[in-house]
Amino acid sequence: MTLTLITFDWLPDFPRGFVRDMRVRWCLEELGRPYRVETVPSHPKSDAHWQMQPFGQVPVIREKDLTLFESGAILMHLAEGSALLPGPRRALVTQWMFAALNTVEEASARWVLMVLAVRMPDFFGPAPDKQVIEFARQGMNARLAPLEEKLAAQDWLAGDFSIADIAMIDVLRVGRSEGALEGWPALAAYVARGTARPAFRKAMDDHMAHWQAADHARMAAAPA
Amino acid sequence: MTLTLITFDWLPDFPRGFVRDMRVRWCLEELGRPYRVETVPSHPKSDAHWQMQPFGQVPVIREKDLTLFESGAILMHLAEGSALLPGPRRALVTQWMFAALNTVEEASARWVLMVLAVRMPDFFGPAPDKQVIEFARQGMNARLAPLEEKLAAQDWLAGDFSIADIAMIDVLRVGRSEGALEGWPALAAYVARGTARPAFRKAMDDHMAHWQAADHARMAAAPA
Repeated sequence: MTLTLITFDWLPDFPRGFVRDMRVRWCLEELGRPYRVETVPSHPKSDAHWQMQPFGQVPVIREKDLTLFESGAILMHLAEGSALLPGPRRALVTQWMFAALNTVEEASARWVLMVLAVRMPDFFGPAPDKQVIEFARQGMNARLAPLEEKLAAQDWLAGDFSIADIAMIDVLRVGRSEGALEGWPALAAYVARGTARPAFRKAMDDHMAHWQAADHARMAAAPA
Repeated sequence: MTLTLITFDWLPDFPRGFVRDMRVRWCLEELGRPYRVETVPSHPKSDAHWQMQPFGQVPVIREKDLTLFESGAILMHLAEGSALLPGPRRALVTQWMFAALNTVEEASARWVLMVLAVRMPDFFGPAPDKQVIEFARQGMNARLAPLEEKLAAQDWLAGDFSIADIAMIDVLRVGRSEGALEGWPALAAYVARGTARPAFRKAMDDHMAHWQAADHARMAAAPA
């Protein structure tokens, strides 16, 4: 049975490329697994969506009897038994999964949301003062500095390329788009190394084509 | 070989009870596994500490050849093959592990750090404006509302009690200490249910005794 990836039907331009279905698409391309895409309305959200994802987020995957959300858990489930989550390195890969999605993302998302609030307060809320934003940047840098040191010495987080790299690079990409990686050349090179992989390119092309098809459908449906 | 849990040698009063070694202690008590405690200096941090934990955090565990950090990964490693991470519910438990340590903690930590900055700016940085804090609270509430609904209908997140409950309750305890659970009675009851477990009580007693012993050692070492 083909795996189903569930994402939003349409989103405005600014989050495109960063919606978390990207990391699942990337993983599926690395694994060479075919999948089909289903959508849920981004606004207003549907009851069916709330029922399968209590936080109203995407992605969700469906496979036989299993419906699963949280991109970290989806990556671990999909990669089970593959070279992206090898048994002997299970604990190590899991460690870096949580480092990406807790330790690093918690600090980087805090700063990114503040920066976005300066530009789009209607969407991201009132902007904090400059000193508050600067303190958040220092907090993020305290996480990025050890990572910079590690990734100056090795290509990937846990031996060969793994789902931990998919998660970490996807987290770092968001910060990079706001300038978080300026001053961190090894992290910038790490993101470049990951996003140069054919599986990432294919996933990103499909991800962007999804939103473009949604634009076209909207235009076709709009009253003349 | 006995498992070793590594935590800080001493901390001031305010984080006691909430240091992340608590969730590992709790898990070990649930599993009935003995362990010994080793410490690293909280200030200044040691080279040995930075080498085993690149972000300078605790806890770390050591078991035979394995040194592991990130409390989420430690819980998953320790619970492997036990009733706290049962095979048939692995994907579901993992889903709620990431929901706790990414989706919920990211939103609750953002608000908690702002509230703490109002009280302790020397430690937590400049305090944001009230509207910024209120917006963060709304963001946290958007995560707590679906969780409230879920835990009004069931005792635990993923069937029987699991490591996902250890992680989620430990995250919610931090917010609760600042008033985050006011207005969320099912979440308050969930935290009360978890923290009433004998394994939690034992872990908390040992956790607090650790800091008290550190106080006594400091007093004994202080010049008269």
